[in-house]
Amino acid sequence: MTDRKPIRRSPRAPANSAPTLDDVARAAGVSTATVSRCLNAPDRVVPATREKVMQSVKALGYTPNFAARVMAAKRTHTIGAIIPTMENAIFARGLQAFQEALRNRGYTLLVSSSMYDPEVEKEQIRALVARGADGLLLIGHTREAQIYDYLEQQNMPVLVAWSYIEEARLPSVGFDNFGAMRALTEHILSLGHRRIGMISGLRAGNDRADRRIKGVQAALAQGGLDPAALMLRETPYEVESATLSITSLMGEPAPPTAVICGSDVLAVGALRGAQAMGIDVPGQLSITGFDDMELSRIVTPPLTTVHVPHREMGRSAAEELIEMVEGKRPGRSKRLDTYIVSRGTLTPPAG
Amino acid sequence: MTDRKPIRRSPRAPANSAPTLDDVARAAGVSTATVSRCLNAPDRVVPATREKVMQSVKALGYTPNFAARVMAAKRTHTIGAIIPTMENAIFARGLQAFQEALRNRGYTLLVSSSMYDPEVEKEQIRALVARGADGLLLIGHTREAQIYDYLEQQNMPVLVAWSYIEEARLPSVGFDNFGAMRALTEHILSLGHRRIGMISGLRAGNDRADRRIKGVQAALAQGGLDPAALMLRETPYEVESATLSITSLMGEPAPPTAVICGSDVLAVGALRGAQAMGIDVPGQLSITGFDDMELSRIVTPPLTTVHVPHREMGRSAAEELIEMVEGKRPGRSKRLDTYIVSRGTLTPPAG
Repeated sequence: MTDRKPIRRSPRAPANSAPTLDDVARAAGVSTATVSRCLNAPDRVVPATREKVMQSVKALGYTPNFAARVMAAKRTHTIGAIIPTMENAIFARGLQAFQEALRNRGYTLLVSSSMYDPEVEKEQIRALVARGADGLLLIGHTREAQIYDYLEQQNMPVLVAWSYIEEARLPSVGFDNFGAMRALTEHILSLGHRRIGMISGLRAGNDRADRRIKGVQAALAQGGLDPAALMLRETPYEVESATLSITSLMGEPAPPTAVICGSDVLAVGALRGAQAMGIDVPGQLSITGFDDMELSRIVTPPLTTVHVPHREMGRSAAEELIEMVEGKRPGRSKRLDTYIVSRGTLTPPAG
Repeated sequence: MTDRKPIRRSPRAPANSAPTLDDVARAAGVSTATVSRCLNAPDRVVPATREKVMQSVKALGYTPNFAARVMAAKRTHTIGAIIPTMENAIFARGLQAFQEALRNRGYTLLVSSSMYDPEVEKEQIRALVARGADGLLLIGHTREAQIYDYLEQQNMPVLVAWSYIEEARLPSVGFDNFGAMRALTEHILSLGHRRIGMISGLRAGNDRADRRIKGVQAALAQGGLDPAALMLRETPYEVESATLSITSLMGEPAPPTAVICGSDVLAVGALRGAQAMGIDVPGQLSITGFDDMELSRIVTPPLTTVHVPHREMGRSAAEELIEMVEGKRPGRSKRLDTYIVSRGTLTPPAG
């Protein structure tokens, strides 16, 4: 294609800069919109044009990365986040910090709630891409591979939060759900508890719930207990449903002396349910939460729980995602630490 | 302009249909994008073209309403909502219902949080318009007139929720914040309370907070008390800050026997603060909330509060906004009823 016309660099481009979308468009004799389309939706371009453009792309050494960088010049300064739910404030605090950090860098945040439904999340990913989001924040790593393929085709910078998994396909700024729950369970076992119950969120499609369960089981195995003996109830993250779960757990032939809850919301429901049954917490039953939401300090007694650094996670995720969007790097994962907060709902077992 | 060329109707348009964007574009000899620009961003079109297009618009009897309807054919099926905060779940329940109802009609919801900052809200309105939202949901009626002018120029359907004000510029699906608080205060006075305190959200830019204060004052005046004697503290909607406010109120020379809180979040903070001071609630001090969030049932004793029909409000707002977007009507206001929920924090004053 070099025989067609000389490749001119954009007059505005500094000598050493990467080729721009303009350069490719000029070289191919098409509009920049056509070049964009060839790179992002090649099916929508006639083959002859597509070939011409792709030859210019090649001749100029224009790569998808460069394309992403050039398209960044048309940035909308809008970041999308899709969270599983807006209720219960589980994601609220981290998201607020995420938004504040974005705003300090000139970005507006648009949030969508998938209601823990993978189909809804898929629609929302497409909607946010179609609305021109510069980058996306997703929660957790469990989703169909074709979604990741789609996001790659779109050159969309995507970061995961709330779940740090080193080997995952996307970079993540999060914490080790497995390790956090294993540490809590080890602590509970060290107090002498042997009959353990767990009220977990629904694990399907939710890697945080899944890994928290596995963390509990790992600690049980390590402590010489049978992981299969864990009295496990899975339920939506709602106060009312945890109240039902605790009733069911306490109806077991040998009921637990400690119930590990997958979130503070579930622990609050378990606490209320136990108290309604006349069970003294923690005298007769220990209950633990997860998240360290404001809720955990409001109930009586206040919850022993796992502190998740929500604000720090939101802030770090914003910084990392902006670095990705502005093309400075492909996205680096970051693991944040959690720790146990001892309040009023965990003591050694009675008798 | 009829002398320039005959006005042809689009071959696809049924005989009786309104003129389409295509019709205008053909008549003016420009692209549909240019017509759109003339209607939506006339500053970005050279005067000669603009005049040509506006003549076609006029000749075809094409009106901004028709324009809106035609542009609706390019609907993005995306609705934007801007809420003051994502923390504390105040707006979460209503928004979840709003989203579910939108989804049933094929619309995706994108949410932004203004952090109670009018400047941030303004940026977010522009971002959602720029991202192609089909319609917007805003909270409350207090904002600069120029924002309403801008939204009108953009032909953007906008509905307000959480605040029903009949004479307001935008249609609203909400409740009567003034009347709800007046009714609660009347009830408190009927129990014999005479020294009343109030912990309110910050009223600047927040018509809900402002009208709740005025509702309390109206009931005091009606009950023969001096509204100026209301012991009022304004504070952000946070548990911790309400804890400080109750300490300050109880330090008054003649402290209140009942403290009316502008939200459940504030009431929970007041309750914790009072209990930390060794004050028995409701034995020595009555406290009331507003919203009837889950929080109000979780604390001990559970809060007497005002029930706001959050889910119904979200659902109704979605239905109304979709009707507006789909061009069937300009938007009708709807007032939803609130009522007092008597739980454990309000009794007649001691002695």
